[in-house]
Amino acid sequence: MSDKLIITIDREYGSGGHEVARRLAEKLGIKMYDEELISQAAFNIGYREEYVKSNDEKAPEINISPMFSGIDVFQSSPFSKIQDEEFRIIREISAKESCVIVGRAADYILSDEPHISIFIFAPVEDRIKRKLALIDINGTEPMTEAEMEKKVKQRDKQRRKYYEFYTDNKWGGRETYDVLINTSRSGINGAVAMIEAYINTAKGKDLLSDM
Amino acid sequence: MSDKLIITIDREYGSGGHEVARRLAEKLGIKMYDEELISQAAFNIGYREEYVKSNDEKAPEINISPMFSGIDVFQSSPFSKIQDEEFRIIREISAKESCVIVGRAADYILSDEPHISIFIFAPVEDRIKRKLALIDINGTEPMTEAEMEKKVKQRDKQRRKYYEFYTDNKWGGRETYDVLINTSRSGINGAVAMIEAYINTAKGKDLLSDM
Repeated sequence: MSDKLIITIDREYGSGGHEVARRLAEKLGIKMYDEELISQAAFNIGYREEYVKSNDEKAPEINISPMFSGIDVFQSSPFSKIQDEEFRIIREISAKESCVIVGRAADYILSDEPHISIFIFAPVEDRIKRKLALIDINGTEPMTEAEMEKKVKQRDKQRRKYYEFYTDNKWGGRETYDVLINTSRSGINGAVAMIEAYINTAKGKDLLSDM
Repeated sequence: MSDKLIITIDREYGSGGHEVARRLAEKLGIKMYDEELISQAAFNIGYREEYVKSNDEKAPEINISPMFSGIDVFQSSPFSKIQDEEFRIIREISAKESCVIVGRAADYILSDEPHISIFIFAPVEDRIKRKLALIDINGTEPMTEAEMEKKVKQRDKQRRKYYEFYTDNKWGGRETYDVLINTSRSGINGAVAMIEAYINTAKGKDLLSDM
């Protein structure tokens, strides 16, 4: 088994998955890719970063099936070009270096590449509270609790639709991942510690070699 | 926060949940309760152990609702007496000592008691292979792959029905647990190491105290 280590982290909005990925990558001394994928894709295909960002991790908003509108139309759209480029970058970086990749169906894109796939979640009430607390900390635009609840639910829905458009698996479904962690119970550092323990103990193991 | 440590482990049949619990309890130097609950319940209510075992972790096989047959009839049945006694024992032991409890909806029974709830799972093909391999190791009665597949699926169904009869939660659903681990990827020791890391790092943390 190679010493390369690929960790994919998908996450509910506000559950701290990005922060888990950041701290984990820092501890392991490897790179993390999240928004970095946006800027890299924008640069490569020559689109404005803002435009790529607004289409990042979204399913296409087409109301008619590609069967009717013509699959070619969809495949040559700027939208599809963004997703294709992000997927290509994910394959490229994971072929050459250890890394932590956040979201973007990376676990599915890397099905044929050995990797550890994590899903980070938390009850919606706690995620709303966390996101509201982060507004105070980061000094970003204020939001009411109701507005934040709407945003959190909308983002989850977007991520689910994106994931299930590009893969055959269920977003957040137990069977899709190696480990699922509720950060409301573990905190960010608890999740990081578990993933580290997993890496140190479980690498290359399976149920039959360790019964 | 008290130093008492209660860990509940629910599991798909053949996923190694019992073995995870056994090794974890051994490492932590605390007791594990699985079949022990059966013998203790049998002793306390004066039933034959075999009879208790045959009704253990099962939902009642009643075709009509307690509303029609009379809830009193169900509640005074030997079947109900077994479940009640097992739940009572779970509450009793967790009130007085650190322990690992396997199955029996313990996570739900202990909702008001601080505890860590784990779900152990694995793809069904791997669980069938593991159970067949264990037949050779333990020298128990041979079984074909098809027979084992039937058994594994039947046991999962039984456990789901049991769990969902006695609780308001979804058996094996992400939201029900703190951590869910696929032992096909982690092996038994990988799962044990993760839970240990969780205990050492996450205890008393939550998403807002560690953002």
